[in-house]
Amino acid sequence: MNKIVFLIQCDDKKGILASTVNYFYEKGFNILHCQQHTDSYENMYYMRIELDATDLSTSRSLLMEDFGRFAEPLKMKWSCHFSDYKARVAILVSKTSHCLYDILARKLEGELDCEIPLIISNHPDLEIVANQFRIPYYFFPVGDDKKAQEEKISSLLERFDIDLVVLARYMQILSGTFIEKWNGKIINIHHAFLPAFQGANPYLRAYKRGVKMIGATAHYASEDLDQGPIIEQDVVRVNHELSPAGLKEVGKDCEKRVLAKAVKAHLEHRIIIHNNRTIVFNAEI
Amino acid sequence: MNKIVFLIQCDDKKGILASTVNYFYEKGFNILHCQQHTDSYENMYYMRIELDATDLSTSRSLLMEDFGRFAEPLKMKWSCHFSDYKARVAILVSKTSHCLYDILARKLEGELDCEIPLIISNHPDLEIVANQFRIPYYFFPVGDDKKAQEEKISSLLERFDIDLVVLARYMQILSGTFIEKWNGKIINIHHAFLPAFQGANPYLRAYKRGVKMIGATAHYASEDLDQGPIIEQDVVRVNHELSPAGLKEVGKDCEKRVLAKAVKAHLEHRIIIHNNRTIVFNAEI
Amino acid sequence: MNKIVFLIQCDDKKGILASTVNYFYEKGFNILHCQQHTDSYENMYYMRIELDATDLSTSRSLLMEDFGRFAEPLKMKWSCHFSDYKARVAILVSKTSHCLYDILARKLEGELDCEIPLIISNHPDLEIVANQFRIPYYFFPVGDDKKAQEEKISSLLERFDIDLVVLARYMQILSGTFIEKWNGKIINIHHAFLPAFQGANPYLRAYKRGVKMIGATAHYASEDLDQGPIIEQDVVRVNHELSPAGLKEVGKDCEKRVLAKAVKAHLEHRIIIHNNRTIVFNAEI
Amino acid sequence: MNKIVFLIQCDDKKGILASTVNYFYEKGFNILHCQQHTDSYENMYYMRIELDATDLSTSRSLLMEDFGRFAEPLKMKWSCHFSDYKARVAILVSKTSHCLYDILARKLEGELDCEIPLIISNHPDLEIVANQFRIPYYFFPVGDDKKAQEEKISSLLERFDIDLVVLARYMQILSGTFIEKWNGKIINIHHAFLPAFQGANPYLRAYKRGVKMIGATAHYASEDLDQGPIIEQDVVRVNHELSPAGLKEVGKDCEKRVLAKAVKAHLEHRIIIHNNRTIVFNAEI
Repeated sequence: MNKIVFLIQCDDKKGILASTVNYFYEKGFNILHCQQHTDSYENMYYMRIELDATDLSTSRSLLMEDFGRFAEPLKMKWSCHFSDYKARVAILVSKTSHCLYDILARKLEGELDCEIPLIISNHPDLEIVANQFRIPYYFFPVGDDKKAQEEKISSLLERFDIDLVVLARYMQILSGTFIEKWNGKIINIHHAFLPAFQGANPYLRAYKRGVKMIGATAHYASEDLDQGPIIEQDVVRVNHELSPAGLKEVGKDCEKRVLAKAVKAHLEHRIIIHNNRTIVFNAEI
Repeated sequence: MNKIVFLIQCDDKKGILASTVNYFYEKGFNILHCQQHTDSYENMYYMRIELDATDLSTSRSLLMEDFGRFAEPLKMKWSCHFSDYKARVAILVSKTSHCLYDILARKLEGELDCEIPLIISNHPDLEIVANQFRIPYYFFPVGDDKKAQEEKISSLLERFDIDLVVLARYMQILSGTFIEKWNGKIINIHHAFLPAFQGANPYLRAYKRGVKMIGATAHYASEDLDQGPIIEQDVVRVNHELSPAGLKEVGKDCEKRVLAKAVKAHLEHRIIIHNNRTIVFNAEI
Repeated sequence: MNKIVFLIQCDDKKGILASTVNYFYEKGFNILHCQQHTDSYENMYYMRIELDATDLSTSRSLLMEDFGRFAEPLKMKWSCHFSDYKARVAILVSKTSHCLYDILARKLEGELDCEIPLIISNHPDLEIVANQFRIPYYFFPVGDDKKAQEEKISSLLERFDIDLVVLARYMQILSGTFIEKWNGKIINIHHAFLPAFQGANPYLRAYKRGVKMIGATAHYASEDLDQGPIIEQDVVRVNHELSPAGLKEVGKDCEKRVLAKAVKAHLEHRIIIHNNRTIVFNAEI
Repeated sequence: MNKIVFLIQCDDKKGILASTVNYFYEKGFNILHCQQHTDSYENMYYMRIELDATDLSTSRSLLMEDFGRFAEPLKMKWSCHFSDYKARVAILVSKTSHCLYDILARKLEGELDCEIPLIISNHPDLEIVANQFRIPYYFFPVGDDKKAQEEKISSLLERFDIDLVVLARYMQILSGTFIEKWNGKIINIHHAFLPAFQGANPYLRAYKRGVKMIGATAHYASEDLDQGPIIEQDVVRVNHELSPAGLKEVGKDCEKRVLAKAVKAHLEHRIIIHNNRTIVFNAEI
């Protein structure tokens, strides 16, 4: 079934639910799902509304214009998404393949509803994986001129009309310019339970600190390294039997699971960002 | 803040959310929280609505009468709860104290909002715990006449105006008569991950089957043993190092955590039962 | 480093550790790892010993003969494994690809140390996956003569010198004859937390029973369906928001993780079977 | 059964297992359990040996003297413990009772094998809990002279021959002097997943960072706040529905579970500390 999804946030005040529900009711829409969250601590209201697209009696742009007029006096920030549009996803990788394989297999299995028109890397190693799945592979070594390399990537992303950039263990720090340009459209997987072990070598540092669980964190990239809004996290229990290399191996499973869940939530328009935090509504499937 | 909670279930049809939200809006209520679930598989609609009680401009019984008139044509099954009424809970135990201690401590900590006017047991062992918390302890040995013992319990529950009976490792099977009388008001903790290991000695059977996780299940009691609607479950990882006695010890933590969560959800009016399944809405705290 | 692994089980009695350790010490071996388990409930003793193969001063067969003479009076059941031998694994699949992709990617990543010389299926659907990884794919439809189909598979397994058969969501019940022939060499993934929901359609039954967690179980195949020794299990928390189809999707992650862990433990010779239970020693990595 | 436990650590070298096992074998001991760990990354060897105390044919001090002579040339650090000695535990609390109740109930249930001769606090609030369990309660307000307050605590601990100090949500930072004096004998529970959110107000900071799991960490106290060797950690999944107060409430369960596991491991002599990391051997029960 084709669906229309509205993501809405605004200050919490009396009557918002009633007026929003009525708005759609009067336009003739059946509300398939309506998820809300009131954050009393920050006095914010969040809403995800899923509509049956067959109830749409105008053009999509007219719907958005009209909703805009409704939303303005309520000071809503909102976005509108149509389920028949397949997001175009670029995957950036370096040398490790586990997250890449996981995403590509999930796409084929129908778990991730998107197009993956290209894979980009600063290393040649994973071209073989791209070939297995017949996806073009672009190899841009960093070399002396990191800025130039980033610009090549950026213009490629533009040329391919990319909606989402997935850093699937891409081991380069992206510049502020790049991140600003693709703000809210880059999901990174960090191989630690943030905010623990930000930055490099988290598994070695986890070993040295003697933690009893290791984790992974998927977050939107922000200019401050590993500080962006967290989308999903998970951990796995470890003990003294694991060396730093053992932690790394055990952590891979956690990384790919967490990254996939975050990408899926983004593609299904279940995430709202506010003040460096995310509201991630559950999938009802 | 005093709150009014409505729990509603009905067949799913277009416009239910809108009309219900409007009903309360027109009565002058601010909807604090509104949680819904549409079960497309069974074509059912579930709703939990939390209202600010200070918006109530009529008596409570008039509110319920009026809502009843609204709900009838929509064939809603519903209930209405007022947060300033403290549910009266009886705890039934046998010889093991871990669940009892856990519930009593949580009550004192303010986690469980209820009265606990009495503890009932078929053994004298835990009177000492009841004394620590200054709660009357009634000891009814089963003896030859199980029916008579149950009737004593039942009349005591009535005399104390009990709203909820918590079987905190009460190791007696209750009769169908008893369960029918207190239908939907008895929460039991079973020391296994149902439907695995229904009935007696689950830890020994778990050992023999060589499972790698053991669990606990809190459910409403039903006439068929361990078959009632499940409220909460959890598991804990185990391995070959644990004997049946070891599994039992490790499982205790799981049992008390699961039972407490189920009782809390019940007390906070977050549970709807339909067809032997529960909808348990999250606490937003 | 090349390693020799001994897996040993016997009745527990005084002095077994000392005499076994001394046996290897006197043969000039450094014991890299020594893991033990004493099961006081069944009075059994289990041991996994990892030796540095460079300390081996005789032929492999002489080592085994000699250890056999040591083990006999102690009534040990034992096996000996050499880490430079790569086990040959056949994967059997039907139509679902998630477990297959997961195993193949893990093998390429170096997580699973084995050869995968062939994939066998009763459906043509997954040949495309086999082709991506350039592994021969054998399609044997079941048709009217299930016995004949099984014999084709069995003779193929023999021809390819297969050491381990992985049923990666192979949706056919294997005959007693087949299972007996490959006894202890077939690992199956069942899409439920055994012993709950043995047999067909576990996700639908989980939905109907209203469980709050679903799971997956990897076990050695036995003649009685879903009754063989459990190697690994895991669960994932679910709630009322998931339909039977939703449970199935969510469960896939659990299935592939559990199957991979079980296969890895088998390939690393960390599993001892006794009385339909497994002792699975931890990897120290 | 009375048991003798040896905890041993030394540089890893060939033959350590054999010579140690032989040492005890020749003294006539049956080794009930022998757990080892070789840390190849740090080239360390760790061992826990559990002996049947009825095999002891000398005095305890002679056994220790003799083992000392064996251990010296191997440069072993070791300790020896007798299971019939009940460790004497002091609990320090402030105002929150959940960890205190949990420990006291577990002791009564037989889960924690120790004496608890006193409870100390910087607040009067929890005297009521102490009274319920008939344990002396010492109230030392911090006031102007924190040093004097600590000295009172310290001399009380000495007077009561305390072996282990459990900080069960004691909200005062202990001085370096105090910690040095009771080095390796103070277990603290920190209400966050260390090294994330060291220091004050972890739940508020967790809310602001928008983490998707919160945790708790039990560790030996060290002079650097929240930097001591970690014994046990656990986490619980959270989401946007929880305010800082909600996180705090949900976290309490995690805190008490983690603290109890750590105290239990310490009391059962299953912990070895090396370089600010712990080796925690599993309980085999």
